[in-house]
Amino acid sequence: MGAIDVFGNPNSVHGEGRAARAAIECARRKVAALAGTEAGNVIFTSGATEAANLVLTPEFRMGRTPLRLGHLYFSAVEHPAVREGGRFSRENMTEIPVTEAGIVDLDALGLLLGAHDKAAGLPMVAVMLVNNETGIIQPVEAAAKIVHAHGGLFVVDAVQAAGRIALDINRIGADFMIVSSHKIGGPKGAGALIARGEALMPRPLIQGGGQERGHRSGTQNSLALIGFGAAAEVAAGELEMRNVAIGVMRERLEAGMRRHAADVIIHGEAGERVANTIFFTLPGLKAETGQIAFDLEGVALSAGSACSSGRLGESHVLTAMGRDAKLGGLRISLGFSTTEEDIDRAIAAFAKIACRRRSAGEAA
Amino acid sequence: MGAIDVFGNPNSVHGEGRAARAAIECARRKVAALAGTEAGNVIFTSGATEAANLVLTPEFRMGRTPLRLGHLYFSAVEHPAVREGGRFSRENMTEIPVTEAGIVDLDALGLLLGAHDKAAGLPMVAVMLVNNETGIIQPVEAAAKIVHAHGGLFVVDAVQAAGRIALDINRIGADFMIVSSHKIGGPKGAGALIARGEALMPRPLIQGGGQERGHRSGTQNSLALIGFGAAAEVAAGELEMRNVAIGVMRERLEAGMRRHAADVIIHGEAGERVANTIFFTLPGLKAETGQIAFDLEGVALSAGSACSSGRLGESHVLTAMGRDAKLGGLRISLGFSTTEEDIDRAIAAFAKIACRRRSAGEAA
Repeated sequence: MGAIDVFGNPNSVHGEGRAARAAIECARRKVAALAGTEAGNVIFTSGATEAANLVLTPEFRMGRTPLRLGHLYFSAVEHPAVREGGRFSRENMTEIPVTEAGIVDLDALGLLLGAHDKAAGLPMVAVMLVNNETGIIQPVEAAAKIVHAHGGLFVVDAVQAAGRIALDINRIGADFMIVSSHKIGGPKGAGALIARGEALMPRPLIQGGGQERGHRSGTQNSLALIGFGAAAEVAAGELEMRNVAIGVMRERLEAGMRRHAADVIIHGEAGERVANTIFFTLPGLKAETGQIAFDLEGVALSAGSACSSGRLGESHVLTAMGRDAKLGGLRISLGFSTTEEDIDRAIAAFAKIACRRRSAGEAA
Repeated sequence: MGAIDVFGNPNSVHGEGRAARAAIECARRKVAALAGTEAGNVIFTSGATEAANLVLTPEFRMGRTPLRLGHLYFSAVEHPAVREGGRFSRENMTEIPVTEAGIVDLDALGLLLGAHDKAAGLPMVAVMLVNNETGIIQPVEAAAKIVHAHGGLFVVDAVQAAGRIALDINRIGADFMIVSSHKIGGPKGAGALIARGEALMPRPLIQGGGQERGHRSGTQNSLALIGFGAAAEVAAGELEMRNVAIGVMRERLEAGMRRHAADVIIHGEAGERVANTIFFTLPGLKAETGQIAFDLEGVALSAGSACSSGRLGESHVLTAMGRDAKLGGLRISLGFSTTEEDIDRAIAAFAKIACRRRSAGEAA
């Protein structure tokens, strides 16, 4: 009867609804495969921020039995979606410091959990797999072992890792993993909370019609979810090949940057980073100024993270790493569609901007 | 630099981000206009269910001052997204009965609010503007006056009303209004909570990067929001013309149905209904059976509401209206793209199905 939507309401029993539902379930299998698990463990949300707010809660259930978590520990370099702590209250949240290399301090984590008082509930720990500003890869497998030795739940924000390094929720040992569609080339408006198993689940954040097996109500955004599934399939399949190509382009870009400004600081270069990110500070150039200068040259990059609503401020990540955060950092992200011409253009823009720096004696 | 998205991240400061943000702000003005208010009063969400969960909370703020609401009252015919009560606990939720005509019982509302104990906080009342099963229009203006006389906050679920009858948050006297994109012909994955003013706001449901002026974090789904804006503009502009056309088609369809089954019950036909909905029961035909039979004839309709995740059960709306809910009801929705041929096809299917009914002596 005069369908309004290209795809029907996936919760309707009629033919159009069934087709939409089948497409969503297909997307669910693809997202599950990206994380090395089964479709039944994937809860679709409107994005990673919602997924983080869903899982970061003191209220869990094992089947029908309520289980209370007492405290949330998160690394000092987490994304704001995790740092805000979801449904935990401020007094039940503690930051885990990171080393100067930007790596979560596992000794500190062990000490914090050793001192945790289980009387108020088990601990929850959140550590991101790849940092969204520096691209640094965190030792989540080792963190998982520490968390589980203390009887805690371990949440891994894999938003920046998905499509860049292999994810396997079981190998990592995460109890929950968060992924985002638009960070792997899919449409905006889709994300997922992926559980290791369905025994232990958070209290729903959005209640209503009981979609997503009761874990997340609201008509599913079929088109975004289908796009998310397609992006997950591509990400899982071409991961290695694509990353090698992106890694080679990044090396060339970094070499070009060093050639034009020997004093450029590339954050996290000593450790393991994902292949697509360069987070740098150019002495004498404020990040805000640099961003506008690159924009005028037709090169879009971010000052710090784009995820904080366009706020320009000091990077909490650089501060946590003990760096001087006053100048800020600029982030270049290479993507699936980045070409060798883009790299040439970026090097040319960098050369021009580096030459114009005001600070005496610093121009390359 | 190798942009991954068609539209940039709307929270980035670079050129692509600015363009996306401008498009979102344009959509915001269009959605605001549909509700007769200013863009600054619109908070975009992933859908109406999220918007309901955002506003239905005991925790509000007037500027920086916390304001506690003590109890939620909602009509017995509300959508599950409201019936679940958001962040209110079960013991702080009370149902307002409806009359046999399916209209919220305003006398009962007055009595409930008269007995409300303000010591635990002010009352919140939620009444939908148009019912999603029957299409019945509720007396929200009168309800608003009663709620405000008792110092309460009034929330109107306008999901089914938007694009069908004129909305004006100030004329209605709602403090908050909920609308959905895909119910007015826009894409899935977008909705809005519209406030009468920004002085009094609920505690955020999804926290993180502080998008939507801190009221709803997470990268905005630009494409869905732009589509939502376009649909709102069309809905606001063509409302009257389109509804007349749809109303004429509905009359012809209902006349056809009565011709082929004199005993068909069209729910809510005595009162005011929106032009696009027919909610009916055909004696001797269970809704589930009828739905499959119509589907086989190529006519997609819903048993009860499609919003409850495909669950087939008794309609809480029919039960609240004191009807025998065992057979259930079938809902036909006429849309923007419904043609006269669709009406012919629906009448033919109805005639065939009515003839096949098993119950003795009931075939038309």
